[in-house]
Amino acid sequence: MKKIKPRTLSGFMELSPSKQVIFDAMVQNLRETFALYSFTPLDTPLMEAAEILLAKGGGETEKQVYTLNKGDTDLALRYELTTSLAKYVALYYNDLTFPFRRYEIGKVYRGERSQRGRFREFYQADIDIIGDGSLDILNEAEIPAVIYHSFMSLGLKDFIIRINNRKVLSGIFEILRIKSSIADVLRIVDKLGKIGVKKLTALLTNDLKLQKEQAGELVSFLTFSEEPFDVLNKYKGQNELFDEGTRELQAVQNHLTALGIPSTHYKIDLSIARGLDYYTGTVYETYLVDHPEVGAICSGGRYDNLADFFTDRKMPGVGISIGLTRLFYILQEQDLLSNSYLVSPADVLLIPMTDDLSHAVKLAALMREMKLRVQIYSESKKFKVKVSYADKHNIPFVVFLGEDEIKSNNITVKNMVTGEQTTASAAMLTAGIVDKITALRKNMSLIK
Amino acid sequence: MKKIKPRTLSGFMELSPSKQVIFDAMVQNLRETFALYSFTPLDTPLMEAAEILLAKGGGETEKQVYTLNKGDTDLALRYELTTSLAKYVALYYNDLTFPFRRYEIGKVYRGERSQRGRFREFYQADIDIIGDGSLDILNEAEIPAVIYHSFMSLGLKDFIIRINNRKVLSGIFEILRIKSSIADVLRIVDKLGKIGVKKLTALLTNDLKLQKEQAGELVSFLTFSEEPFDVLNKYKGQNELFDEGTRELQAVQNHLTALGIPSTHYKIDLSIARGLDYYTGTVYETYLVDHPEVGAICSGGRYDNLADFFTDRKMPGVGISIGLTRLFYILQEQDLLSNSYLVSPADVLLIPMTDDLSHAVKLAALMREMKLRVQIYSESKKFKVKVSYADKHNIPFVVFLGEDEIKSNNITVKNMVTGEQTTASAAMLTAGIVDKITALRKNMSLIK
Repeated sequence: MKKIKPRTLSGFMELSPSKQVIFDAMVQNLRETFALYSFTPLDTPLMEAAEILLAKGGGETEKQVYTLNKGDTDLALRYELTTSLAKYVALYYNDLTFPFRRYEIGKVYRGERSQRGRFREFYQADIDIIGDGSLDILNEAEIPAVIYHSFMSLGLKDFIIRINNRKVLSGIFEILRIKSSIADVLRIVDKLGKIGVKKLTALLTNDLKLQKEQAGELVSFLTFSEEPFDVLNKYKGQNELFDEGTRELQAVQNHLTALGIPSTHYKIDLSIARGLDYYTGTVYETYLVDHPEVGAICSGGRYDNLADFFTDRKMPGVGISIGLTRLFYILQEQDLLSNSYLVSPADVLLIPMTDDLSHAVKLAALMREMKLRVQIYSESKKFKVKVSYADKHNIPFVVFLGEDEIKSNNITVKNMVTGEQTTASAAMLTAGIVDKITALRKNMSLIK
Repeated sequence: MKKIKPRTLSGFMELSPSKQVIFDAMVQNLRETFALYSFTPLDTPLMEAAEILLAKGGGETEKQVYTLNKGDTDLALRYELTTSLAKYVALYYNDLTFPFRRYEIGKVYRGERSQRGRFREFYQADIDIIGDGSLDILNEAEIPAVIYHSFMSLGLKDFIIRINNRKVLSGIFEILRIKSSIADVLRIVDKLGKIGVKKLTALLTNDLKLQKEQAGELVSFLTFSEEPFDVLNKYKGQNELFDEGTRELQAVQNHLTALGIPSTHYKIDLSIARGLDYYTGTVYETYLVDHPEVGAICSGGRYDNLADFFTDRKMPGVGISIGLTRLFYILQEQDLLSNSYLVSPADVLLIPMTDDLSHAVKLAALMREMKLRVQIYSESKKFKVKVSYADKHNIPFVVFLGEDEIKSNNITVKNMVTGEQTTASAAMLTAGIVDKITALRKNMSLIK
């Protein structure tokens, strides 16, 4: 038979079993954290009518959308999760109760030019809170709390959530009488972290024709973020929008304090803008402190109209998106993923030493009832191969069951970490394995 | 702005939040059950080069494959999970250790003609054990044990796993000197449950030109399944393949007994064949006892060559697939899904009765630390709307926090199930909620 060379498409992450276990554990931790904040799971289709997915239209992203050939409907694969949410909320409006808090962790597709660290199929983990007509500011404060607990649940510790408010930015533009399109200015301001103050000022005066004084004062406003409320109060009373944004930032900070989020992990940063015009209130960007070069690992903000392509109803919301595949890739590249016991497919490899397997099979059933993950090794291989199977898979315990053991109702357990080998009563040693596995599970971390 | 009518493609299941919670819980239960049997998770791409996915080629299924437009590679969406596994095992052969036991729960795509209860996007939950060159019969016995525990974990009780062995079938054909293609005969035999003995015999004599005696004896063999080993022993010693199949069936039955799987839930049924030529040993089909009309809800079997499109290595395996979306659809249609508390997005709806939210926010943080799922209702709505929000979402506890409560360090808790309302110390009542939620979670069932 002619063979086909097996391959996986470039830009598609396909993990080894031990890495997949960590990825899945991360997803599970996120799900549990999102649930504590009362987000309900959704799982929308990956495929939609093209006109639905492209409703927002335009831009680079549209060129990256995968379209499909089947039947007479133009189909497309989703390239982010927000449009699916907008469709869902508009479609099922009458069945939902607002505020509607949902999370979705799912794959999205972008036919980008293939390059290292960029993915064509990747997971996004999104949370959003959608209001019907209005939405209280507390929701904008809860989002960074979820971000904080989410990353902590993944085992990350050195990250910082930068928080700003688009009303403050719009307000300062009005105060400084900057007439350029806010979108244009924000797009340049967004580069501050990358290009620094000087180049930013030059871009603003050259490209956007800001007066030198305007540009200077704007940049000084944006970068003076050690005591943000000092600089904010300086401009107080000059512009309604600005004052509203300032009050919102203050409320967010107060709520975060009450929520117990340590101030080491977030920062009001007046230079954070987010590129999209879409955002209208609080905005967020989260960075790894030791790896700012990888950019924001989670971002989002408050918007006024989730679903205006689909409905006249005003549906404000606030949400964030974690690029989970990219985050995982970074952690892997930085060699930060745990290689501890937890990646093994089994807690116990059970090696029968007799032809009659019935005792081994019964023991496995018993151990599984005690929630141990057990594999019986029944292939006819050399003893050495069997033990090395446990080794290769990082299985922490090997249990031998020979005639002597069966006669005396004993088992022999080899602790693969310490090398220690013990023969004693099956009940006692099994209970001991359960204890040790429970302790291992409690202390295991996904991140080194 | 011109509005686009929101819609979801037909054949794509999109669940309400309360149903999604149950679906996700089912997936989680399956993952935990598969893990107890030491299956490791995989998550392969949904998209592959078309030549990879269509390597097996031919048949109705190929027509249903979704192909894609991007770039110069012909792409396709997977229509089942086995080809992805075959590719994975062939591609990463050197990094894997065999037997390789993996599960994958993921979406697959088939552009079928749209009809009620048929899906174009659906979840399959697959487990497979892949050997390198050989694979012990114990693996074929463990599969029905996993099926049993999987369905029990979903809350299903009335199901039966039918087990047969293709060697027995091939053997009896040889013994009865039936020359027709085994595939043709098996395809007809597969219809036994649907068309009955008479029509089956007629089909065998008319369509396949079997002699009347051959057809009669074959049908009698296949349907005499009350004491399968009685009929199997009758033919013993006449055909090597038949005898091997009989020994394997006996081994599977013995192992299942040792594994503690109750004989009420499985049955050696000599008429089970599975349509595919692919299977070479034990085969399985699982039915809902009260709903045989929906067909098999899980099926699979032993095969000799997983990856022969990709490699010369002999890689025998055994596996099953659960059509999870279809199963969920059936349970929903039969009104078997639980509507208990567990579908709610929160354990506690916290309603602040003061303008200053800081006490409520602190209380929420405290409750979340105790692993309660808490939502603070901070929208300015009428009191009635707030309580009805809890009602609509099935949230079991509402906590009110007014000035009186704050002063006395109390909270007021309304149990939404009993209607009972209590005011007492925050610490005491919170502990009480934790206890009640823990009890509810322990006793909750996904199925009515």
